[in-house]
Amino acid sequence: MIGGTGALGFGLALRWTMAGVPILIGSRSEERAREAAGRLRERAGEAGADSIVVEGLQNDDAARRARTVVLAVPFRSQSENLNNLRYALEAGTVLVDATAPLAAAIGGRATRTVGVWQGSAAEQAREMAPRGVSVVSAFHTVSATVLADPSRKMDEDVLITGDDRKAKGQVAELVERIPGLRPVDCGDLEMARIVEQLTALLISVNKRYKVKHSGIRLTGLPADS
Amino acid sequence: MIGGTGALGFGLALRWTMAGVPILIGSRSEERAREAAGRLRERAGEAGADSIVVEGLQNDDAARRARTVVLAVPFRSQSENLNNLRYALEAGTVLVDATAPLAAAIGGRATRTVGVWQGSAAEQAREMAPRGVSVVSAFHTVSATVLADPSRKMDEDVLITGDDRKAKGQVAELVERIPGLRPVDCGDLEMARIVEQLTALLISVNKRYKVKHSGIRLTGLPADS
Repeated sequence: MIGGTGALGFGLALRWTMAGVPILIGSRSEERAREAAGRLRERAGEAGADSIVVEGLQNDDAARRARTVVLAVPFRSQSENLNNLRYALEAGTVLVDATAPLAAAIGGRATRTVGVWQGSAAEQAREMAPRGVSVVSAFHTVSATVLADPSRKMDEDVLITGDDRKAKGQVAELVERIPGLRPVDCGDLEMARIVEQLTALLISVNKRYKVKHSGIRLTGLPADS
Repeated sequence: MIGGTGALGFGLALRWTMAGVPILIGSRSEERAREAAGRLRERAGEAGADSIVVEGLQNDDAARRARTVVLAVPFRSQSENLNNLRYALEAGTVLVDATAPLAAAIGGRATRTVGVWQGSAAEQAREMAPRGVSVVSAFHTVSATVLADPSRKMDEDVLITGDDRKAKGQVAELVERIPGLRPVDCGDLEMARIVEQLTALLISVNKRYKVKHSGIRLTGLPADS
């Protein structure tokens, strides 16, 4: 979990820890990563998790040891992080990009986005990732606030895009480990151009309805999906 | 209903007719409009509607007489239609734009979109609409196939954007006339830049899951909305 000290990364890590998924929290500073790992263990323990496997590491150590690496950092830091990770990400790793190119990155509104030359933050990640690393885009519509509060039940979808079906399947399995979340395959990675925008849309909806946790559920899908 | 002979326009008109909302079907040709109005009466009658008020007219006559004008035409024809309507739309009219700028308009894929100079098709409509006409954007995520089949129950949201709250409220009321549809205010008209993309996203999801009717429901909103 790169950016595991941030709100989204911490929330996801918490839910996975509670589901028994081993987590490596990464941060630029090992100390902050360890501190977050400690908090995570504590929160998951309070929430009744039993087999807790959490470790705090520097980003590159965390990335080197993980089979699935989730990048949950602000857009402003995405390319710096990817640049730093280029020797740590090994072929066969699945890189899950959760970046939303909000205009907040350049001092603009969080209800607006900026254009990314490659088409989307996910496609920027694909361009920067080492050969053999599959990029999957996900988690743009899930509220960090809700994830971080285990007393809250979730009931929404995680929209997944990517060019590699096997890698998407691996991410879908991780999504299913969190009760109440359903993975939905939205197509190739280029569709992240649309999905990434939804973070801004939900922020606008949250403002309008004075809530903090709107999400998305697709209707009309086959019941078994 | 401008473009009432097309799939989305006809589907919406059918559902409203069944709910007792008087409908003026507009088309470039009065003959085609009348023919569609006839079909609409028949379909609504079969589905058990009792007070059916439907008329087929040329686009500009339909627009002149309506308080709310829904523009449901392919992106390719949007600006031509708006140009033709510029003397028919009177101040105080609410213009509901349902256009999605799919790349299909220029021979590309329906899972991709083209950039609109004004930011979105809705903002193009705002620029072209006569002074005093409020533009509201809606109905991009509702399946025309489902709308046109009264035996199918709907259970999804209509994402609405616009700068004028009163106009959005007027459209929200129309949405609520269709059972199973919930209006959600997604913010100012500029947010249509995101909502319009969702048509392409849902087309991608439909392909992936081999369905024809995926839609969107937002989660986490206050129960009374």
